[in-house]
Amino acid sequence: MTDSGRPAAAADLLARLSLNQETVKQWSLPELADGCARAGVRGVGLWRAPVQEYGPAAAARLVRDAGLTVTSLCRGGFLTAQDPAGRAAALDDNRAAIEEAAVLGTDTLVLVAGGLPPGSRDLHGARERIADALGELGPYAAARGVRLAIEPLHPMYAADRCVVSTLTQALDLAERFPADQVGVVVDTYHLWWDDTAGAQIARAGGTDAGPAGTDTAAGPDAVAGAGGTGGAGGPAGGGAGSRIAAFQLADWVTPLPEGVLLGRGQLGDGSVDFRWFRERVDAAGYRGPIEVEIFNPALWARDGAQVLAEIVNRFAAHVG
Amino acid sequence: MTDSGRPAAAADLLARLSLNQETVKQWSLPELADGCARAGVRGVGLWRAPVQEYGPAAAARLVRDAGLTVTSLCRGGFLTAQDPAGRAAALDDNRAAIEEAAVLGTDTLVLVAGGLPPGSRDLHGARERIADALGELGPYAAARGVRLAIEPLHPMYAADRCVVSTLTQALDLAERFPADQVGVVVDTYHLWWDDTAGAQIARAGGTDAGPAGTDTAAGPDAVAGAGGTGGAGGPAGGGAGSRIAAFQLADWVTPLPEGVLLGRGQLGDGSVDFRWFRERVDAAGYRGPIEVEIFNPALWARDGAQVLAEIVNRFAAHVG
Repeated sequence: MTDSGRPAAAADLLARLSLNQETVKQWSLPELADGCARAGVRGVGLWRAPVQEYGPAAAARLVRDAGLTVTSLCRGGFLTAQDPAGRAAALDDNRAAIEEAAVLGTDTLVLVAGGLPPGSRDLHGARERIADALGELGPYAAARGVRLAIEPLHPMYAADRCVVSTLTQALDLAERFPADQVGVVVDTYHLWWDDTAGAQIARAGGTDAGPAGTDTAAGPDAVAGAGGTGGAGGPAGGGAGSRIAAFQLADWVTPLPEGVLLGRGQLGDGSVDFRWFRERVDAAGYRGPIEVEIFNPALWARDGAQVLAEIVNRFAAHVG
Repeated sequence: MTDSGRPAAAADLLARLSLNQETVKQWSLPELADGCARAGVRGVGLWRAPVQEYGPAAAARLVRDAGLTVTSLCRGGFLTAQDPAGRAAALDDNRAAIEEAAVLGTDTLVLVAGGLPPGSRDLHGARERIADALGELGPYAAARGVRLAIEPLHPMYAADRCVVSTLTQALDLAERFPADQVGVVVDTYHLWWDDTAGAQIARAGGTDAGPAGTDTAAGPDAVAGAGGTGGAGGPAGGGAGSRIAAFQLADWVTPLPEGVLLGRGQLGDGSVDFRWFRERVDAAGYRGPIEVEIFNPALWARDGAQVLAEIVNRFAAHVG
C-alpha cells in the first residue's frame, strides 16, 4: 500500500518466524533451542516460569549458543490491583520481569495488563491504574533496553485477565509515554474480529509523526516521545517511533473450550486472515519478528518437531 | 445528562421490566404467562420455537389474556449464507419470523445476524450480505409494524454466530435504512467491555437528527429515513428516530463454559455496571421495555417463580 509495504520474499519472511515457547510446551528449554535450530527457526519467545526454573543467565546462554534470538518475554502486567500491597507487589514483580528480559537480551516484555479486581465493575479506573503503573515502569524498562508491550486481549478476557481489549485502547495507553518505553502487541487471535484493527495498525506504525498518531490525540498526560531516536528499535523493533513491539499469530477456532484459554488454533485452521494482518503490519513499517503463539493441548500432545514443521509449512502457506 | 435524562422512579422502572422466556426455560408458555402476571411483571420476550410449538395465535391470546405485552421475538437473522439456496431459505425464514412477530403483537424482531460461512474468512463480505438482506426484509417488516433489531453479539461469537460485534457496526448497518425498518439491540452482556458503547448509545438515540447520527456518516447506500414519523415508536420504541429497539440485561461472569453460550450471570453476580447502561439508555431517550435475558442452566434448575422473584429484586437493586 505504501512505498515501504513491498511484498516480502518468502525466505525473508521465514527468517522472521519466531516460535513462542508455550506453543510447544511439551519441550524443555534445551529441546526448544535444539528443535528451533534444527528447523531453521531463528527466534523464540520465552515465558518467565520455565526461564526462572532453568535460570535466566543459563537460558540466555543456551539460546544464544543455539544461534537464536529471544524475540519477547511473556509476561509482565496484572497491574490493576487497588490495594497498596497488591499494587507494590505487582510493580516489584514487573521490575523483576524487566530484569529477566534484559538478561535474556530481548527488547520486548509482553504485558497482560490485568482484569477487574474482585467485586469491581470499574473498567475505566482499572485502565487508569495501568497507566499509572506504566509511568512507573516505563523508564525502568527503557534504562535496561526493554520496551513494555501492552497486549490487547480479546474482549472475552476483559473481566479476569485484561481490561485492555482493543488496539485503540492499547495505543491510547501507550501514546501517553515515549515510544522506547511502551509499545503494543498485534496478536491476530485477539484482534481478528475488529474492523477498526487495520486503521489502528496504521496508527501504531507512526512512521510519519511522533508517538502520537495523526488520527488520534494523545491523552492528557502525553509525554514528548523518543521520536526519531527509536530507542527500542534494532532488529526486533519497528520503524522509528513505531508502537508495534510484537506481532503474534494464532488462529480462531470454535467451539471455545471451558475457560477459553486453551482453544487457539493452528495457523490456517480457523477464521483469521493472516495475510491481511501481515500486509497491514508490513505497511505500518514493522520489520520485526513474527511470533507464533498457540495455546492448544492438541498440539502439546504431539511430537514437538512435527508441530514445528507444521507451523513452518502453515506459516509459508497462510502468512507469506 | 440531558433534559430528558431524568432519574426514573423505582415503580416506573419496574413497570418496564420484561422477562425473556429463555431465562426461565423450565416454564411452559402458560406457566410463563401465569408466573409473570403473579409477579407483576408486564412484559415477556418470546422465542420462536416454543411459540411455534404452542401456535403463534394461541400464544398471542394466552399472553394478552394474562395482561402481558410481548416486548420482542427472538430471533431472526443468520443472513450471511453465500449460496443462493441458503440465502433464499434464510430470507424465507426471516419473513416467517416477521409474520410471527406481527401475530404476537410485538414491534421488535431481534436478529442474530450470522457468522462466517464454513471456510470463509471474509468478515466484511459477510457484513455486506447482512446489509443486502436488511434491504430486502426491512420494508416487509415495517409494513407489518415490525422493526428488525440488529443485536451486536460479543466478539467471541464473531466466527460462528454474529459478525456484528459492536454497537458501532450495528448502527453502521442500521443507519443505511429507515428507522422504522431497522434498529439495534443494546445488550449489556455483549457490550459491557467496550469503552465506545456509551458514545454509541447516544448516537443510537438520534433524538436530534434523522436516522444518520451526527457523529458518523451513513453508508453509501443510505436511504432517507422515516425521521419524525417514528413508525416503530409506541410503548416499546424509543423516541422518534431512535435506533434503540431493545435494551437487554445479563451479567458477565467467569469462567466461561465450553461453547460460551450458557454462561450468562444473574444481575449483580458479575462485572456489568447496569446502572451505567440504564442511565445512558435513558439519556438517549429510550423509554421502552428492559428485558432480562439470561442463559444459565443453574437458573433453569431452580423453581421459576423463585428465579423471577430474584430477578425482580436484583433489577431494583442494580438497575434502578
